[in-house]
Amino acid sequence: MIIVMQKQASPESVTRVVAFIRSKGLQGHVSRGEERTIIGAVGDERVFHPNELESLPGVERAIRVLNEWRIISRESQADNTVITVRGASFGGGKRLDIVAADVGRQDADVVFADPFYMPARPYAVTEHSNEKNHIRAMQAVVADAHERGKPVMVRIRDVRQIESALASEADVLYLGGELMSNRTLQDEVGRLNTPVVLCKDKHHRADEWLVAAEHIALRGNHHIILGEAGTLSFEPDHPYRLDVDAIVRVRKISHLPVIANITRLWHGDMPQEVLYRLAEAAGADGIVSSLAARPVMRLAD
Amino acid sequence: MIIVMQKQASPESVTRVVAFIRSKGLQGHVSRGEERTIIGAVGDERVFHPNELESLPGVERAIRVLNEWRIISRESQADNTVITVRGASFGGGKRLDIVAADVGRQDADVVFADPFYMPARPYAVTEHSNEKNHIRAMQAVVADAHERGKPVMVRIRDVRQIESALASEADVLYLGGELMSNRTLQDEVGRLNTPVVLCKDKHHRADEWLVAAEHIALRGNHHIILGEAGTLSFEPDHPYRLDVDAIVRVRKISHLPVIANITRLWHGDMPQEVLYRLAEAAGADGIVSSLAARPVMRLAD
Amino acid sequence: MIIVMQKQASPESVTRVVAFIRSKGLQGHVSRGEERTIIGAVGDERVFHPNELESLPGVERAIRVLNEWRIISRESQADNTVITVRGASFGGGKRLDIVAADVGRQDADVVFADPFYMPARPYAVTEHSNEKNHIRAMQAVVADAHERGKPVMVRIRDVRQIESALASEADVLYLGGELMSNRTLQDEVGRLNTPVVLCKDKHHRADEWLVAAEHIALRGNHHIILGEAGTLSFEPDHPYRLDVDAIVRVRKISHLPVIANITRLWHGDMPQEVLYRLAEAAGADGIVSSLAARPVMRLAD
Amino acid sequence: MIIVMQKQASPESVTRVVAFIRSKGLQGHVSRGEERTIIGAVGDERVFHPNELESLPGVERAIRVLNEWRIISRESQADNTVITVRGASFGGGKRLDIVAADVGRQDADVVFADPFYMPARPYAVTEHSNEKNHIRAMQAVVADAHERGKPVMVRIRDVRQIESALASEADVLYLGGELMSNRTLQDEVGRLNTPVVLCKDKHHRADEWLVAAEHIALRGNHHIILGEAGTLSFEPDHPYRLDVDAIVRVRKISHLPVIANITRLWHGDMPQEVLYRLAEAAGADGIVSSLAARPVMRLAD
Repeated sequence: MIIVMQKQASPESVTRVVAFIRSKGLQGHVSRGEERTIIGAVGDERVFHPNELESLPGVERAIRVLNEWRIISRESQADNTVITVRGASFGGGKRLDIVAADVGRQDADVVFADPFYMPARPYAVTEHSNEKNHIRAMQAVVADAHERGKPVMVRIRDVRQIESALASEADVLYLGGELMSNRTLQDEVGRLNTPVVLCKDKHHRADEWLVAAEHIALRGNHHIILGEAGTLSFEPDHPYRLDVDAIVRVRKISHLPVIANITRLWHGDMPQEVLYRLAEAAGADGIVSSLAARPVMRLAD
Repeated sequence: MIIVMQKQASPESVTRVVAFIRSKGLQGHVSRGEERTIIGAVGDERVFHPNELESLPGVERAIRVLNEWRIISRESQADNTVITVRGASFGGGKRLDIVAADVGRQDADVVFADPFYMPARPYAVTEHSNEKNHIRAMQAVVADAHERGKPVMVRIRDVRQIESALASEADVLYLGGELMSNRTLQDEVGRLNTPVVLCKDKHHRADEWLVAAEHIALRGNHHIILGEAGTLSFEPDHPYRLDVDAIVRVRKISHLPVIANITRLWHGDMPQEVLYRLAEAAGADGIVSSLAARPVMRLAD
Repeated sequence: MIIVMQKQASPESVTRVVAFIRSKGLQGHVSRGEERTIIGAVGDERVFHPNELESLPGVERAIRVLNEWRIISRESQADNTVITVRGASFGGGKRLDIVAADVGRQDADVVFADPFYMPARPYAVTEHSNEKNHIRAMQAVVADAHERGKPVMVRIRDVRQIESALASEADVLYLGGELMSNRTLQDEVGRLNTPVVLCKDKHHRADEWLVAAEHIALRGNHHIILGEAGTLSFEPDHPYRLDVDAIVRVRKISHLPVIANITRLWHGDMPQEVLYRLAEAAGADGIVSSLAARPVMRLAD
Repeated sequence: MIIVMQKQASPESVTRVVAFIRSKGLQGHVSRGEERTIIGAVGDERVFHPNELESLPGVERAIRVLNEWRIISRESQADNTVITVRGASFGGGKRLDIVAADVGRQDADVVFADPFYMPARPYAVTEHSNEKNHIRAMQAVVADAHERGKPVMVRIRDVRQIESALASEADVLYLGGELMSNRTLQDEVGRLNTPVVLCKDKHHRADEWLVAAEHIALRGNHHIILGEAGTLSFEPDHPYRLDVDAIVRVRKISHLPVIANITRLWHGDMPQEVLYRLAEAAGADGIVSSLAARPVMRLAD
């Protein structure tokens, strides 16, 4: 960590910052410039937060030098992680075509099921409205896919659904962005051996995504696939958009595979085919769509 | 709902839209203008979604006329809802001073406890790291506050924590923004009689907030307090900010009380005192802070 | 325009709205629903603004049905506009490779010059610091390109530079996003016969872009190329990103050609090659880059 | 500047970075940590841009330690700058009430005129449509205000309007956000002695605002007032909002006075009175409104 002191910071405040750094087990190197004194904290800076330093008197800014992730970083593993489930390889170089189960398409590489979906709108009419029906529907999807040798990805929306997804032989657990802040659920998923898709929510930056992935990896489960399913836009009629920049960025920083889920991002001004092409251009290792026909590979190699 | 047809829409496509509207139990009124044909759908338009119409051929745009909320709207109740817990009234005209439990301040109107907090950073060192310690700490906070006649608001972060919060005699359940998409948890909270704070997350607009509140109200629990705890900013060093506009807006649209939680929004360039003053100027019915001294009422009446 | 009245709106307020609509030369049709009265304003609604209606008593919302653009809309011309300059066709189906002049690459279809650039940073050291040098440099670029039969696009940054760009035989005038609000400059450009690139700025939505294009078209100049050169992102280190969604959207709504300028959008986590591929996937009719080698067509047809 | 090297950076790349730093007249200090080598560049780092360093091989990140502004910083002047025009003091501790000229209110401290306004909508009907009428109207406003001893702030929208504003005896020039990127105009304003309001545009961060102010100050004109007139929001119906956070922030970083212009930010869900109160709570030194009555001081001292 690098600590930039205020121009008028007193020698005492510098001493206090160095003492704080040492109390955490790191070393402090002071370099006095003409306009600013700068203190370098050498050691594992992950044990404290910049805010703790910024609240000390005389401190202008504390800048983290190391990232909060290690296991999932390209620095600790240069090669892509490849996660293979029933013959489908995430991160293996070939882009996987993943289809929403209700489309009923048979030629996709992976099937995506969302059995616990509940409409956001309070007055919407819902079918399968009870838990039992949800589970039965999911089991049918899994059985059908497995018969054809295809893996199934099941979206869970609450910690209590992990068990029934696993009991139904889901091959991959899919965590929507709303679970990005649920550390207790991530703890449980981290102790499993089942591959997991971790989506960021509409407001997350790439850093927060990677931090959550590291949290899961630290618990032991390294079979993590990053999932991008929409971020905020400024267009009033279409509040969400595919975050192509984030896909490009995390593929550079991390060795984990990344998929895009475009099933809820298309609209009148953005056909699903174009979204598919954009996800492909960004380098997604797999794309979840509800396209009725398998898209043709568009990019020449 | 109002359906605007494309300029070149065929008479058949108009007929098809009207038929769709009728199939849902509404009436359709067609008015042909020079540039556009417009169809009004009269009846309870909440039963379907604009997207269903926009996917029909010839349709340019479907615009909802009614909102998705009814119970919590000022249209169904002009007067403010007042929720009184152990003598503290949310929405009663007097702004409540709510203090984070770990500050230890005794003169606040309400105490806020966050016993299940887990740091977002994977390498952070945590105390009370087990569930039992969490619960014991919360019970001590509640007992101490109740002795002084003050109510306690307890933040839950997972559906399984509702029970232990209630067993510990929490007076108000506080749902952070990460629970805004958890409809099953909202179902459970909706069946309780305990007051609940519903926070929006960083990316939610006022509409999504009110829709979630209506969802809870529909289940039976009308003791809902809206909570604002931060939205996205563009400043790179400080990604979140207090959404003063949302506070003003929902107080106009809804009769529910609204509180602001500024405990995680202050930083070097935005002191907690200023945030408090901004929340006050926006009309918040209560403010959760970690200020060491009770702020003086700044606004003259 | 459609006017939705408040639930409790009085009959007098309905009468007043209808009178207002008539005073503007439109007709008003009132339809009374169970929950809302709705008034349709039939005629050319472009003569007034929704705000004027929303400030009348009893009005909840006024919704525009027609867009603010006509000439540039696909509704008035279904086929793409093709603008051909010295053999290079914008919108003609083949994606144009446009290169920044200082790269010195000879095989591009079009050359892009930015002679009036001034660094945003006050303490930056600048070369060619006087106007005369700017103009001389531009003239050299134009002469060199014309010798090779290639057109040149010149970015102007102030209304007074139009004249010298034209005197230097620039083939296309390039208006950066900062000129999107300069209606007097747009008036002048609108009276020319020279093709013009109109870029939106970081905060503009597609609508504002099309409105500005219509403004120019109304003055007489229909040789308009839309330009996308960056919009806001949430990543703290990289505040701008390519707005692929806007490119897709305006190509659907308008018949004008659209180009992407990626010269200031690449960074360590987003190589220029990937941006090029994304712009291509979004359907850009031309891409301004500073790539040292001409990119290979990646999309198979 | 601090340069963080990549984990696997070679000794040669470190040497190359140090050489680059020296070539710019700064000194380079290398400190080798366990995980990263860090290079400190000591001297006036304002002469180069982080991007120049980030493009060297082996460099992960270059972090600026000093800001791009000096003259306008609180570090060079701890006390508020006070700008007094015809008895009205900006930054003098008393909040100025500034009123839009067309309201015709006589009791405000300052009058705001926007004579060169042109509607954004192409089909809007405009009055005073010629330049001469604009200027005549402005002169009348100025004459009337001066008779009452009040200063007038005139908004210019193009560089050619500076002259006529000054000829009409405008006391303060008001630069809207669209002029934030116009360095040539800022050069001219910087050479004047007339006070100037510098507004940021919807997409600017506080840093870009202060950099532009420094640019003007460097040319010689230190009579600068910062102006906040709206930033982006996520609410689809109301795309802009008052940036209270930016007001708070720049008042901390800079000694310049700051005013808020709320005349284009109010709407049905955000009354002008509430915006006024928010600007006040944020600490604005003056507020431009179109309120029909002078607002009462709401904050007790």
